[in-house]
Amino acid sequence: MAGSKFAYVKKFELPDTLLPSTFMVLRLDGHSFHRFSDQHGFVKPNDLRALQLMDHAAKSLMEEYKDIGLAFGESDEYSFLLRKSTALYNRRQAKIVSTLTSLFTSCYVFHWPKYFPDVPLQYPPSFDGRIVLYPSQREVRDYFAWRQADTHINNLYNTAFWALVQQGGKTTTEAHAILRGTVSKDKHEILFSGFEINYDKIDPRYRKGSVFVRVETTPEEPADELSTNTDTTSVRPVVSEESHRKGKEEKKKKKVATQIELLHCDIIRDEFWDKYAHLMRD
Amino acid sequence: MAGSKFAYVKKFELPDTLLPSTFMVLRLDGHSFHRFSDQHGFVKPNDLRALQLMDHAAKSLMEEYKDIGLAFGESDEYSFLLRKSTALYNRRQAKIVSTLTSLFTSCYVFHWPKYFPDVPLQYPPSFDGRIVLYPSQREVRDYFAWRQADTHINNLYNTAFWALVQQGGKTTTEAHAILRGTVSKDKHEILFSGFEINYDKIDPRYRKGSVFVRVETTPEEPADELSTNTDTTSVRPVVSEESHRKGKEEKKKKKVATQIELLHCDIIRDEFWDKYAHLMRD
Amino acid sequence: MAGSKFAYVKKFELPDTLLPSTFMVLRLDGHSFHRFSDQHGFVKPNDLRALQLMDHAAKSLMEEYKDIGLAFGESDEYSFLLRKSTALYNRRQAKIVSTLTSLFTSCYVFHWPKYFPDVPLQYPPSFDGRIVLYPSQREVRDYFAWRQADTHINNLYNTAFWALVQQGGKTTTEAHAILRGTVSKDKHEILFSGFEINYDKIDPRYRKGSVFVRVETTPEEPADELSTNTDTTSVRPVVSEESHRKGKEEKKKKKVATQIELLHCDIIRDEFWDKYAHLMRD
Amino acid sequence: MAGSKFAYVKKFELPDTLLPSTFMVLRLDGHSFHRFSDQHGFVKPNDLRALQLMDHAAKSLMEEYKDIGLAFGESDEYSFLLRKSTALYNRRQAKIVSTLTSLFTSCYVFHWPKYFPDVPLQYPPSFDGRIVLYPSQREVRDYFAWRQADTHINNLYNTAFWALVQQGGKTTTEAHAILRGTVSKDKHEILFSGFEINYDKIDPRYRKGSVFVRVETTPEEPADELSTNTDTTSVRPVVSEESHRKGKEEKKKKKVATQIELLHCDIIRDEFWDKYAHLMRD
Repeated sequence: MAGSKFAYVKKFELPDTLLPSTFMVLRLDGHSFHRFSDQHGFVKPNDLRALQLMDHAAKSLMEEYKDIGLAFGESDEYSFLLRKSTALYNRRQAKIVSTLTSLFTSCYVFHWPKYFPDVPLQYPPSFDGRIVLYPSQREVRDYFAWRQADTHINNLYNTAFWALVQQGGKTTTEAHAILRGTVSKDKHEILFSGFEINYDKIDPRYRKGSVFVRVETTPEEPADELSTNTDTTSVRPVVSEESHRKGKEEKKKKKVATQIELLHCDIIRDEFWDKYAHLMRD
Repeated sequence: MAGSKFAYVKKFELPDTLLPSTFMVLRLDGHSFHRFSDQHGFVKPNDLRALQLMDHAAKSLMEEYKDIGLAFGESDEYSFLLRKSTALYNRRQAKIVSTLTSLFTSCYVFHWPKYFPDVPLQYPPSFDGRIVLYPSQREVRDYFAWRQADTHINNLYNTAFWALVQQGGKTTTEAHAILRGTVSKDKHEILFSGFEINYDKIDPRYRKGSVFVRVETTPEEPADELSTNTDTTSVRPVVSEESHRKGKEEKKKKKVATQIELLHCDIIRDEFWDKYAHLMRD
Repeated sequence: MAGSKFAYVKKFELPDTLLPSTFMVLRLDGHSFHRFSDQHGFVKPNDLRALQLMDHAAKSLMEEYKDIGLAFGESDEYSFLLRKSTALYNRRQAKIVSTLTSLFTSCYVFHWPKYFPDVPLQYPPSFDGRIVLYPSQREVRDYFAWRQADTHINNLYNTAFWALVQQGGKTTTEAHAILRGTVSKDKHEILFSGFEINYDKIDPRYRKGSVFVRVETTPEEPADELSTNTDTTSVRPVVSEESHRKGKEEKKKKKVATQIELLHCDIIRDEFWDKYAHLMRD
Repeated sequence: MAGSKFAYVKKFELPDTLLPSTFMVLRLDGHSFHRFSDQHGFVKPNDLRALQLMDHAAKSLMEEYKDIGLAFGESDEYSFLLRKSTALYNRRQAKIVSTLTSLFTSCYVFHWPKYFPDVPLQYPPSFDGRIVLYPSQREVRDYFAWRQADTHINNLYNTAFWALVQQGGKTTTEAHAILRGTVSKDKHEILFSGFEINYDKIDPRYRKGSVFVRVETTPEEPADELSTNTDTTSVRPVVSEESHRKGKEEKKKKKVATQIELLHCDIIRDEFWDKYAHLMRD
């Protein structure tokens, strides 16, 4: 064969298998999204359309990849939990991180017009991805707690900051100066006494971020009764049928119907993990 | 800080630095593009629109990442050569492979309507990426020779196969049976005597694939005289000004104007590598 | 400084940190020990002196590296369990595997004359080492069960084989032929009816291998009551004071007195792991 | 088979193949050799016996592993260059680094009594090892230049320091204070005017370190004429027949007789690399 004398170059592709029986977390982050959000006129401190678009892309990823049981998103980042026994792409790191980051990005661009019908996309956005392995449930819980705690800190700051600027008439420099050194209680107070904003009444989507969980369902008892916290108004197809694209390996197993629910609830305390204990099961 | 007791989970992100002073090749492949091309009615054996869209995405990647000096594409795959001294993202593997695959995908979806104005994109396509390291010029040359030899083999087969089906009225099963066991000469003969197709006269874009090279240019002597092989008609913005998005590191260096040229030439023989010797320089 | 222009070569040393909070098993295997045992006249099927020398080297390694809580040895191999929270050499793989393999080897050569006073060492033996990570207790238990099951299989075969040769007058070819296709019960029967050997009465050292466990002890209640299975006659310094060489990090912690016990007991069933549950604690 | 239900634990052993066609440097360093040299009364600033023992162990490693073409040692460290095409242990990192470090250590302990007949080894010494990959000849040269430049700096300092202490009657604290801030020329001056020591006349073994090169030889023209710089008095078996232990793969190739020469010459300048250009050949 003509190309065979060159085929030795394939030997330079080294294996990059990830440790078996270990939870994988894939985290995606928007690349230069500060600039991207400016250029596309994102509303401050939170742009509902942009968050819903992120959610849509995340949900699409979960529909395509059944081994993702949980996802958490805030701002321009999203984290996905793959079950520890996943054999996706034989656990090859580059294959997983590149393919899933690619599909998320593709969904983001593809669905953009649904969420920004009047804002044409000006240039193609991109995301970076990384995979972090966690050996035990404790670390997985703490990872997601870390991201949600971060959401809280950032959102409280941003809410106070933009209230000072948008409603208080401060410059951004002044607003930063006012907030410098304040603790959580101070920011609540600034919001409440300055702008009659009760931070705890703000839409939980902004305070808690977005949580997608995959739950098993059966024809008799639909799962939607489980989702009492579900913010059913804020994303288009909250609970939908699974994608019909299925890999070969899916067909061998007993089919379990699952659906994906969107929540904006606390994932730091035990309650969530007790209710969705199956997420850690294997 | 509220999240600090969880921040230990960051320690599970392990470094994945790639060996310094080694050429990196990033290869992207369409994910399930057999199905994708069917669903979007790609012309067989080659769809000019689809190839031009791939080229456009590849060129955008090179405009954004100056350390890519060379790219080669065929069908639904593209390979990019990063110079061996590149410090892109501190040579972190997951960061590079995910971000570049993401941007390529984003460009593909973003520019789709330009190349398929009458074919709405039905679902978001995705790509996988991998990085292969090559220590020396010899292996880099052989890598690209391997891909172009593969292009030749595949395209000759596909051209004969679709001639038999489209013009010869064979079923696909019959066409495969006719071609089984044939060598290159036989396929040329089938094309010539059966369909008056002189394979060597077919558009070099299909026979050779697409080659992007970055060349330095100066105001006095524009580089376009170099590109005698350039197929200037087949892609929209063949030679354009570089993107104005520049990372900080770009600004420190003496600015060298470069432009990116599209070729459909042989990259197996010495001639190409002698002419563009700078691609290997560091 | 004179060497500074060359110091860039240090940048090619890439980090090789092992995943945190994951159990490490270090396994050492004798390199070409078939030849080595022949040249030094090891007794078949088991050479007590050689096994005791292996045990001595293993125990020395545990005295030096407090993060090893458990070791298991048979024939010319030894496996060591490091606790999952160990920060030994910042969990750098090459550093750990090379240093520990080196020390084990050094001990083996150093202590040789004690166990083989009449057999001069003819050439320097060597060992290879590898580190395998296990995320959970289940896999650690199964790893050690795998090694002990292997010990059983090998030792039963070898015992029957050498009985046939040494006492039965068979050639090695004949002995292999007789054992081909036999199951465990058959081999027991050959030993019992042919040579009046009750396999289950053979020294547990040979049937079970060697197990070293680190146990905490206090002045009031010496730990030796725990070790009812301890084969106190078969290794020289069965229970000794710990080495006095201590790294800096040891000094910071509350000092816990520990001692290392040698057992030849079952490590497949729950009993062992219930009794020594602390081995998995962190 | 009894152990088969546990055998899944083997899947946790992940591949660790090193990049093909890349030079490997293995560096070994004595573990806690400051203490070791004190306890065994090493002569200061250089102990000839200890250096010769290191050389002996290094030479043994080269006799066993034919893919090592070059070695450089100083003090308690040794670096070995494996040719870039080596397929040793399929280029598995842990296997190579552990086995070679083990054999070096074993040789060191085994041959100790030859070099220290009156100094019993008090405890087993150990070494750590690491492998660094270098893609090109330039970096390999600079690596070895870096080590030899380091040898020079350290030895000049130590020679001056111990002259001040041993012959000048200074305390070690005083000697350090005298040398603080001095440059190379100052140290030469201290040695010459204070102690009539012409540093450049000191045995090149101490100033240059030890260099082992493998050279091809033929029956007609013995290679020893090449080794004009060879310090034939300072190590026991300077040029010896190769070890007769050969792996299977050796037998397939045309046998080339080689021998290993000990030099104490400059390896920073071109002369050495021009003469032994074959070391880089593949």
